[in-house]
Amino acid sequence: MSIDTSRRSFLKSGAAAATAMMAAAAAQAGIPAAKVEKWDEEFDVVIVGSGFAGMACALKAGQAGLKVLMIEKMPTVGGNSAICGGNVACPVNPVQKAQGIKDSKELFIADCLKDGLGINHTNLLATIADRCNDTIKMVVDCGCEFVPNKMLFEGGHSVPRSYEIKAGTGSGYIMPMHEVLKGMKNVVIRTRCKFDDFVMGEDGSVVGIVCREGYRFNAKAVSDDLENKTGKKKTVKALKGVMLAAGGFSRDIWFRQVQDPRVVPTTDSTNQPGATAGVLLKALGIGAAPVQLCWLQFLPYCNPHEKGFGVSVNFTNHACMDLGLVVDRKTGKRFMDEHAGRKIKADALFKVIGTDQNYPIAVCDDAIVKAINPSFVKLPLEMGTVKKFDTLEALADHFKINKAAFLEEVKKFNGFVKSGEDKDFNRILKFNNGLDVSKAPFYGIEVCPKIHHTMGGVMINEKAQVISTMTQAPIKGLYAGGEITGGVHGASRLGTVAVIDALTFGMIAGEGFAAMK
Amino acid sequence: MSIDTSRRSFLKSGAAAATAMMAAAAAQAGIPAAKVEKWDEEFDVVIVGSGFAGMACALKAGQAGLKVLMIEKMPTVGGNSAICGGNVACPVNPVQKAQGIKDSKELFIADCLKDGLGINHTNLLATIADRCNDTIKMVVDCGCEFVPNKMLFEGGHSVPRSYEIKAGTGSGYIMPMHEVLKGMKNVVIRTRCKFDDFVMGEDGSVVGIVCREGYRFNAKAVSDDLENKTGKKKTVKALKGVMLAAGGFSRDIWFRQVQDPRVVPTTDSTNQPGATAGVLLKALGIGAAPVQLCWLQFLPYCNPHEKGFGVSVNFTNHACMDLGLVVDRKTGKRFMDEHAGRKIKADALFKVIGTDQNYPIAVCDDAIVKAINPSFVKLPLEMGTVKKFDTLEALADHFKINKAAFLEEVKKFNGFVKSGEDKDFNRILKFNNGLDVSKAPFYGIEVCPKIHHTMGGVMINEKAQVISTMTQAPIKGLYAGGEITGGVHGASRLGTVAVIDALTFGMIAGEGFAAMK
Repeated sequence: MSIDTSRRSFLKSGAAAATAMMAAAAAQAGIPAAKVEKWDEEFDVVIVGSGFAGMACALKAGQAGLKVLMIEKMPTVGGNSAICGGNVACPVNPVQKAQGIKDSKELFIADCLKDGLGINHTNLLATIADRCNDTIKMVVDCGCEFVPNKMLFEGGHSVPRSYEIKAGTGSGYIMPMHEVLKGMKNVVIRTRCKFDDFVMGEDGSVVGIVCREGYRFNAKAVSDDLENKTGKKKTVKALKGVMLAAGGFSRDIWFRQVQDPRVVPTTDSTNQPGATAGVLLKALGIGAAPVQLCWLQFLPYCNPHEKGFGVSVNFTNHACMDLGLVVDRKTGKRFMDEHAGRKIKADALFKVIGTDQNYPIAVCDDAIVKAINPSFVKLPLEMGTVKKFDTLEALADHFKINKAAFLEEVKKFNGFVKSGEDKDFNRILKFNNGLDVSKAPFYGIEVCPKIHHTMGGVMINEKAQVISTMTQAPIKGLYAGGEITGGVHGASRLGTVAVIDALTFGMIAGEGFAAMK
Repeated sequence: MSIDTSRRSFLKSGAAAATAMMAAAAAQAGIPAAKVEKWDEEFDVVIVGSGFAGMACALKAGQAGLKVLMIEKMPTVGGNSAICGGNVACPVNPVQKAQGIKDSKELFIADCLKDGLGINHTNLLATIADRCNDTIKMVVDCGCEFVPNKMLFEGGHSVPRSYEIKAGTGSGYIMPMHEVLKGMKNVVIRTRCKFDDFVMGEDGSVVGIVCREGYRFNAKAVSDDLENKTGKKKTVKALKGVMLAAGGFSRDIWFRQVQDPRVVPTTDSTNQPGATAGVLLKALGIGAAPVQLCWLQFLPYCNPHEKGFGVSVNFTNHACMDLGLVVDRKTGKRFMDEHAGRKIKADALFKVIGTDQNYPIAVCDDAIVKAINPSFVKLPLEMGTVKKFDTLEALADHFKINKAAFLEEVKKFNGFVKSGEDKDFNRILKFNNGLDVSKAPFYGIEVCPKIHHTMGGVMINEKAQVISTMTQAPIKGLYAGGEITGGVHGASRLGTVAVIDALTFGMIAGEGFAAMK
């Protein structure tokens, strides 16, 4: 179906004008291909962004022998993926089977829907469940290492289903994948190269991009996307198409506040400074359907005294929230299921923090610290955000916790762990997801949520093709994966699902390019 | 600031090509003005849509002597405004003052934020509060009639602050405003005329539209916007600009499900069939910033046996929810504050309805029916959706309510009304917002929520100017008001606030056109 043919009637006469007109109308925004004087370069596939989705796409397209350009506006590859926690959900995997953990595609989808408030695009969740073991194989083949025979039981999931990345961060994927890609002669990776716009074919397809080489991101700009004019323009033809893997907009001061006015310019985020909305907004301009853009996710394990992601997130999450407890210092008591989904916990934390910055205290003990990855506690202790005490009394004194009530609460919590039943908040304890907090030394840290992930983005289908509002069908030549897309997570995502999401749809996009004639 | 100058470098040579290129880039989508062979017509102001926002804008621009075209794709004017409830919030008004009701701008904003989950654009709420008395004067001057000296106490508002429209529906504004506009020689109103696209100036401004006259909306199409090719193309120049007043997308089968996949094609809506996303999506295509598109509101006073808005909404809302009670037929008990905001009530209703269509029963008595507008009960009784009974026992038998528990519950409710304190759901009863349900005959009706209002839309500022994602500044020549905009209501709007929203920003847009040199 063409939506443009009838527009010829009011065009300036002449076939050329009609053609240009058609292009402008069909392509909506972007640069009409007819206006590009010359293509500076030509590739089969152009990938915008170099995090999980970009790397996975480059890998699959590169392995198929396609000529690939992956651009990254920042000075180093990896985007936010390189600094994230890196553990990865994989429903129904061999480790679960070996350990007798019963999981299913349906259970995975149900867990995601619960935290996502029921508005997830379940076709995309089903795709992840169907393909996640292929995704894990892909990254392991690149040299990614997981902690052997270990399944993490992450917040909001009903069963342990997440692999733990040995490196302790997403760099555990980015570095080996980057190495593999560097070894491919048909793959070009270009940092400090910023996407500027799409080049559109007459039929409304994406046929290339305009970018700037030698771009220098300005972290001090209010809006780098608007203000930064550095770099040299280049046109790049994409014979098979363009893949958007440009991430979310947690650091986009303006656009995040348009969606949620409570988020002010000073609101901190766990994300790297390049996480802006520029590419997403250009995609909307060529008719990519926006999905659930107004849901911002707060990571509920951050520390108010660290900037950005900081160094203590893994400690607070895996030591204190997975196994220990969190208390309100005013009451000395717990106030939430520490193992709930992120939205539930962030909402509960905000309520306690209130307007007087009453940051809750996350607590664990020596036995717990011995049970987690040693790297999780080392740096935060050195930096001083995690504090170590010989007694729970000393911990309470230091953080000004209501002491008597707190000691009583720890005793009560230990009882819950022993009985396997949390009578106060119904936390799941059957997977030993709680340890008796009784063995000195004891550890404590202040907790606050920070903006972590923007749920919404462009709409994709199961093939990672971007869907147009103008045709309700795929925009030819345009793929997307990872945080720039919306729908997978609905209103709120569970931990470790973003990693599998980005890797899987990146892989699928790469396979799609590879399968093209 | 120009974002396009640097693009010249890769343009085809020649000034004309450069100019066209600039236009395409700056204007994003839409039709470049340079490509319009001839303008079929020329007006100062072109208004897309003829509901509250469109009428108010036409009125103000028309009164200023501007040449105005207001187009409406449906066969009759008024859009969804003509069939809505029509009562209108007006914080801090003379009737409140005469009755000793203390209200404030701040209280109005706080009430809206509560149901809006804190994400409302409060600058827009403040504008409404500042201008609402002017808005009321404007419509009264047109001949709109309110019930004298009456302030409705609508759900979610902390105080009575809404005028009751005498006509009982939004036609009480549309009809007199239409009459006034028909008397203006400088205002042209054209039905069956569909907006197709924007025509964009070289500087990225909106300079006109392309529309189709003699268009015949096809209610049987899955997507009328995509499928319907009827009508004759026309280009219309808008010397001062274009006003978007095209309403929401509660009837857009595809786009509403993209935002909330729980809403399936068969999900009923209170809206007229023309409430689709076509104009909104074209606006996004020229860079209008999307705001909170994924929040759909369900009206919690509908009837499952009526199609669409039906005839019983006012009865269920004003008789049973404002003054009576609502019970779960399985338990015979109340399950919510019947006077809460729409989101809270819709969520509570969905929970009771469950998967077995256990529609709750709304109940009132003769004294309540005597206290409301007689028109609210007449038609639903005739149509048979409201049923009348001599005893509460007979009512319980008819609707298969757990009788003993129900009779006990009514007694308890009557006690709450007497004491002025709802011990179960903390409903505000101090404004006599509850009547003793004891005087035969008794009335009952089944209740279910239907999609009613789409919260999100394009971003506007306090002057009703549409904001661009590409510049974070107004798109020159583009205004919007009413349901096509987002931000005013946040996640969920209170009853009677949409009417004042649409009328006020329509008025402001009209004033803006009038003030242009």
